[in-house]
Amino acid sequence: MDREKLYEHVSQADVVISLLPPSCHLIIADSCIELKKHLVTASYVDDSMSKLDGKAKVSGITILGEMGLDPGIDHMMAMKMINDAKSRNGKIKSFTSYCGGLPSPAAANNPLAYKFSWSPAGAIRAGRNPATYKLNGEIIHVNGEDLYDSAAKFRIPDLPAFALECLPNRDSLIYGNLYGIELEASTIFRGTLRYEGFGEIMGTLARLGLFDLASHLCLNQEKGPTYRTFLHDLLKAHSTGSTNDAVKGEKELAERILSNGYCKKRETATKTAKTIIFLGLLEPTEIPLTCKSAFDVACLRMEERLVYSNNEQDMVLLHHELEVEFPDDQPIEKHTGTLLEFGKTEKGKATTAMALTVGIPVAIGALLLLENKIERRGVLRPIEPEVYEPALNLLQAHGIRIQEKIINQC
Amino acid sequence: MDREKLYEHVSQADVVISLLPPSCHLIIADSCIELKKHLVTASYVDDSMSKLDGKAKVSGITILGEMGLDPGIDHMMAMKMINDAKSRNGKIKSFTSYCGGLPSPAAANNPLAYKFSWSPAGAIRAGRNPATYKLNGEIIHVNGEDLYDSAAKFRIPDLPAFALECLPNRDSLIYGNLYGIELEASTIFRGTLRYEGFGEIMGTLARLGLFDLASHLCLNQEKGPTYRTFLHDLLKAHSTGSTNDAVKGEKELAERILSNGYCKKRETATKTAKTIIFLGLLEPTEIPLTCKSAFDVACLRMEERLVYSNNEQDMVLLHHELEVEFPDDQPIEKHTGTLLEFGKTEKGKATTAMALTVGIPVAIGALLLLENKIERRGVLRPIEPEVYEPALNLLQAHGIRIQEKIINQC
Repeated sequence: MDREKLYEHVSQADVVISLLPPSCHLIIADSCIELKKHLVTASYVDDSMSKLDGKAKVSGITILGEMGLDPGIDHMMAMKMINDAKSRNGKIKSFTSYCGGLPSPAAANNPLAYKFSWSPAGAIRAGRNPATYKLNGEIIHVNGEDLYDSAAKFRIPDLPAFALECLPNRDSLIYGNLYGIELEASTIFRGTLRYEGFGEIMGTLARLGLFDLASHLCLNQEKGPTYRTFLHDLLKAHSTGSTNDAVKGEKELAERILSNGYCKKRETATKTAKTIIFLGLLEPTEIPLTCKSAFDVACLRMEERLVYSNNEQDMVLLHHELEVEFPDDQPIEKHTGTLLEFGKTEKGKATTAMALTVGIPVAIGALLLLENKIERRGVLRPIEPEVYEPALNLLQAHGIRIQEKIINQC
Repeated sequence: MDREKLYEHVSQADVVISLLPPSCHLIIADSCIELKKHLVTASYVDDSMSKLDGKAKVSGITILGEMGLDPGIDHMMAMKMINDAKSRNGKIKSFTSYCGGLPSPAAANNPLAYKFSWSPAGAIRAGRNPATYKLNGEIIHVNGEDLYDSAAKFRIPDLPAFALECLPNRDSLIYGNLYGIELEASTIFRGTLRYEGFGEIMGTLARLGLFDLASHLCLNQEKGPTYRTFLHDLLKAHSTGSTNDAVKGEKELAERILSNGYCKKRETATKTAKTIIFLGLLEPTEIPLTCKSAFDVACLRMEERLVYSNNEQDMVLLHHELEVEFPDDQPIEKHTGTLLEFGKTEKGKATTAMALTVGIPVAIGALLLLENKIERRGVLRPIEPEVYEPALNLLQAHGIRIQEKIINQC
């Protein structure tokens, strides 16, 4: 990044908004502190950013991070729901939160029910992150290699038409601390939403070796192999005994997936075979020489085949559930908050749900700072009422509606 | 119907289109035969209509029935797929067809995942129709009272995000005859699509007595009971022993549903309890005196609570699957055809997917007759290439796209 140009940009701004990658934010924050300009980003407030709190306060500026969707709207919804419950003397016994950026059901028109609007590499890697959460008082760890297999069926009771599943999302416990419910809540869980089948298919593809990062011998020759040859090479590497014949179609491929032990259920094997064929990994086309590993091949094919075509909508779904206990044997309540947004086309211009739900909160953050509605200085997240109360009102005014519901549990 | 007015209308028309209820069509057809005008309808061609074939031929007119969605586009898709396969020497071993008019997933925002755009009475009654189909050579009968419980999970492989289930739809065997595959196909099945949970919830509500047509004593007093009192009356009627206390909320209601034996699984009981509460059947509001039976109460509440609000879309989903066998040990193929349409809003005017997919085929039928593209006379369905070939082309031209796919089964 050109420091001089950055300095010039920042000096001309009233409030600085950055949607650049997180790695750029520290240097931008430095300029903002020096030039006494507020800064808003949608990225995580990491340790190095937190450490700027003192300097930001001295300079009299606010650095408002995590002001997108997740992190962002999820914090606002959670803190509003938690503080509303606490103001009624409620204790949060359980906090569970589910979020996904997905194709709309009609656009999820492939066996994996997923599409990428950016490079698949990050998304595939995220599927191997270890996770930690608390369930009925017990701390549960999920190893990275088990994450895909830990996907569990999930339905939103008032939106039962979405065939969803949920994968635990990294360390949920830090959210217990952030939201001040770490002592009272015996369940604290944050999950990533996908459509049913995603986890089992991705887990099976992983065991097939399709996400292996190591440089692969047959990809590093003068001439690349075909996808078909390469897939058979992967199948052969794991196969035992006499099953080395070429597979012709979906049924034979599913058989081989089962007999090689990549998954246990026939249904999973069939879904995975359908996915492999959909990705063109059985086609007799030459693999470009730029692919050095199985992971490269998988990413390339996913980038080519799992893309949104014109008029296809993406979708953002965010759902929180709280279980709230009250004194004097009052009935337990379940509080839910749900946000469902689809990509929009207005006057021929398409905007994704992801762009809307990340971009609008950032803009709202800037607006609140410009209008001096946020008076707190230093490094902030939208977990303070000073931020989330006006921000949630402005979100609603801009058509981003959160449905809240309280259900008596007796 | 005013015969004179009808006669005047028909005499002025070039081609007569009727979207009136089926009961009106015989008298309209008579006028058309007399005045030598072609007739197009979206209704079933029943026996009495079929009998007009001779008269229509003598009069030199075409009566084109079943020209909507289901019946209509389903016939066109089926016959195109079947005739395409036969022209390649294929034999149809299995024909399965699934069709549903549903809320879009986002609009299916209630525990039943269903909404009504017309009176629920017909739809509830349709859920008690007996059904017949052929599965692997065996004829299966489903009694009317077992229909809801026969709902089975169903996924469209390339649209896995829709959490669907399927209920057998009346007599599938007559379609085997109509399509000329009754001898070769060992599986012939037509089903109605709903979202997951619909069948088990409706079956449980039926056993609770909520769809009973008989006049109910406590509804025929001077003053109607409240919904809450009436529901407890229903619960009491079936309960055994000491569980006659009032239920306060979802959990207690689900318990009672289970202990009264209306369903076997706790999950079903919970979904049903959520539905009852969503419908307002636990509310202390007085039931209008117009309700004479439990069925009337259910219909009223469904009409009030399961309605589309502004900007909510309906959806039409039609999916055919054929298994085609070829001579000389060629691999079996699976042929699929899928139609997915959503309600549209253009220039502030909303049109439902149901109106589009019923109305456009009818209009296309009239167009083809006006342009003399259909030369056959008498009573027709769109199962003739002369009708379905140009009709499918025109449907596509009007944005109603059918996705076809052939999958090698080896």
